[in-house]
Amino acid sequence: MKKIIKNVDVLPMTEEGLVLRDAVVVIEGHTIKYVGAAEGLEAGWAAAEEIDGAGMLLLPGFINAHTHAAMTLLRSYADDLPLMQWLQERIWPLEEKLTAEDVYWGTKLCILEMIKSGTTTFADMYFFMEDVARAVEETGIRACLSRGMIGVAPTGLQALVESEALIEKWQEGADGRITVMLGPHAPYTCPPDYLEKVMALAEKYKVGIHIHLSETLQENNDIRKMYGKSPVAHLNDLGLFEYPVLAAHCVHVSPEDIKILQAKKVGVAHNPESNMKLASGIAPVPEMLAAGVAVGLGTDGAASNNNLDMLEEMRSAALLHKVNKMDPTTIPSYKALEMATTGSAQVVGLGDQVGKIAPGYKADMILINTEKAHLYPKHDYFAHIVYAAQSSDVDTVIINGSIVMRGREMTCCDEKEVLRQAQRCAERLIG
Amino acid sequence: MKKIIKNVDVLPMTEEGLVLRDAVVVIEGHTIKYVGAAEGLEAGWAAAEEIDGAGMLLLPGFINAHTHAAMTLLRSYADDLPLMQWLQERIWPLEEKLTAEDVYWGTKLCILEMIKSGTTTFADMYFFMEDVARAVEETGIRACLSRGMIGVAPTGLQALVESEALIEKWQEGADGRITVMLGPHAPYTCPPDYLEKVMALAEKYKVGIHIHLSETLQENNDIRKMYGKSPVAHLNDLGLFEYPVLAAHCVHVSPEDIKILQAKKVGVAHNPESNMKLASGIAPVPEMLAAGVAVGLGTDGAASNNNLDMLEEMRSAALLHKVNKMDPTTIPSYKALEMATTGSAQVVGLGDQVGKIAPGYKADMILINTEKAHLYPKHDYFAHIVYAAQSSDVDTVIINGSIVMRGREMTCCDEKEVLRQAQRCAERLIG
Ligand SMILES: [Zn+2]
Ligand SMILES: [Zn+2]
Repeated sequence: MKKIIKNVDVLPMTEEGLVLRDAVVVIEGHTIKYVGAAEGLEAGWAAAEEIDGAGMLLLPGFINAHTHAAMTLLRSYADDLPLMQWLQERIWPLEEKLTAEDVYWGTKLCILEMIKSGTTTFADMYFFMEDVARAVEETGIRACLSRGMIGVAPTGLQALVESEALIEKWQEGADGRITVMLGPHAPYTCPPDYLEKVMALAEKYKVGIHIHLSETLQENNDIRKMYGKSPVAHLNDLGLFEYPVLAAHCVHVSPEDIKILQAKKVGVAHNPESNMKLASGIAPVPEMLAAGVAVGLGTDGAASNNNLDMLEEMRSAALLHKVNKMDPTTIPSYKALEMATTGSAQVVGLGDQVGKIAPGYKADMILINTEKAHLYPKHDYFAHIVYAAQSSDVDTVIINGSIVMRGREMTCCDEKEVLRQAQRCAERLIG
Repeated sequence: MKKIIKNVDVLPMTEEGLVLRDAVVVIEGHTIKYVGAAEGLEAGWAAAEEIDGAGMLLLPGFINAHTHAAMTLLRSYADDLPLMQWLQERIWPLEEKLTAEDVYWGTKLCILEMIKSGTTTFADMYFFMEDVARAVEETGIRACLSRGMIGVAPTGLQALVESEALIEKWQEGADGRITVMLGPHAPYTCPPDYLEKVMALAEKYKVGIHIHLSETLQENNDIRKMYGKSPVAHLNDLGLFEYPVLAAHCVHVSPEDIKILQAKKVGVAHNPESNMKLASGIAPVPEMLAAGVAVGLGTDGAASNNNLDMLEEMRSAALLHKVNKMDPTTIPSYKALEMATTGSAQVVGLGDQVGKIAPGYKADMILINTEKAHLYPKHDYFAHIVYAAQSSDVDTVIINGSIVMRGREMTCCDEKEVLRQAQRCAERLIG
């Protein structure tokens, strides 16, 4: 099945600042076949389906490098509280009551919101992952799934078993849209002997590891008390970084930690809005980028954000680091968009498959409608996207070559039904 | 002309956390007549026009306490540059070329975007203010207009004359939607003898003064060199604060400065995204609020934001100060919404007229459509608005009793024409 998008301005994210004006993009099956001038197409070439991209920008779909999809059910349920009170009194008691059905509908709500805001891939860490995988399969999105594992919890060993089952059943599943990673929650919830078991599975299945790392000062203090070193040094000494690692947060990392992250090619998921809202701190992202660490962007769960809007996340990243460094040249617009696309692709282990509009890459892309007051006049497109656009400007979303949203109408999910079911689950949970 | 909005959940902003469920709001002429249960209306009461508010939240329109509307023409024209390079090489040369027609269409573009994002009043400082006033009159928005005055410029005296003319012609103009303030640009561009002339006009016409204050460290250093004190102390010693003053930014204010602002009832317009993008610094907003200083929210001009989205500005304010204070309880959602409504109303001198949904207040209000994925499930409305909502959720906007947007369709301006003309002006400017 061939598709062609015509008359469109393309931001391929293959070269700094590059815009291909009035170009065409050709998709065949799951893959991008051609990007460039219409004249470059061979004579006699025909597509089964044409999309007119006039007035639109075409760019890679956003990649949310760290979230907990089903927590969307807890959006705006508890806010503006001290971290431990928020977790212990509000979030954890509710999470204990979550059923497989809640996770299924919470994830569907999350995916609906993500697609409507231009996200085409997400990296998830949660539980009832069978139901998350089912939601991913049905909705057409791409995902890197990990069963969250708390080594110190009674469920610790069972979580390892479930992780293994998830890999066996879903690795490369849903037409190749699902990859599976192992999800040890954090160094402070997974002791060394537990992480050894995780690494054994990583070795056996050749899969990556998704972990929270140095999110709060408390974590750094606790790990230093227990092991006499930073969380990054601790995991490195355990050998965890010999495997591909996606590390969420890395807020409190030292220059020495950054050297380790770079040397071991650890990918970092930066979650600026969650870090701001929970007052965790400001990650040294400019320093990590300067050191050559791969940095992607994530929203974290909607309970601490409170949305899954990657456009907003880019904007917050670009603005926060400017004021933090007192330097307006910090994280310019192209760099912010790069973090949300190629950067995130790299850290979730899909750097050679998604995040760029280029032949051979998976056909994951979005069309942004620029015919909006807040996107006029038409000056710099990268600045427009990062500093002015909003998620409702996303008009069309294509994932793995399939159109999942067109003219803001979902094609792979019944939007009203998802809202209704999510509300029902939330009310049962809280009631 | 009576209007009634029915079946609506109202956030009146009259009492912390108050939500009136399934209420009605009655408008007569320019004014709110009734807010409460449908049963409270007297028998036989009838409205000429009914609006069904089911699935909507009704709240006061946002008040943008500081902007330069026509600069919307320069959105995304120059970004991510050091401040002085940005101003001297990119912004000022273009501003010199601006014509009255540019300002008219730039302001219309700005107003279009503001109404579409729920803003019902804005405080503007710019030039060609006659044309700004005309745009305000035509579009139905409410505005506090000030002719920006640069005392050290050759136009300094002319600007005083134009300010006086603006007051005489437009004070209480456009059905009372326009108020005029005096707009001396900043302490470093307006020397004491010039500010004396401004105060003489403030005295003569009983109008307020809109000024930039302590935006950058550079300003503080320069003023200290010239006058041996902080910009706040300097203006206070000159007697400027004996008049109602709207001070934009106040980023670099000391505890002593804050005492002066509080004692003299100076209103502060906080512009978090502009301060972040230009890397000016982080205003001590929690400290100012704790000291009892009135603080409103503004976007500043779109050249340094790059949009006029007050929902985003609230979110940035709430998130920025949390991480800056390392305290997640800083600026909770209700406080952020308060800054954008009642706070801004107070600082622009309209605290007894707008910013609340209460009988006797001007009928300036918005309806937010909550039937969106990113606003499900329906937990805390204030958290939803501040942390999750986006400006395209604004469905209906009423200003001074008139519907200016309904179902996202503008009633008082030809949207396509505004976009076209703004693009034309921008291309002429830059080409
Ligand atoms: Zn997380
Ligand atoms: Zn300004």
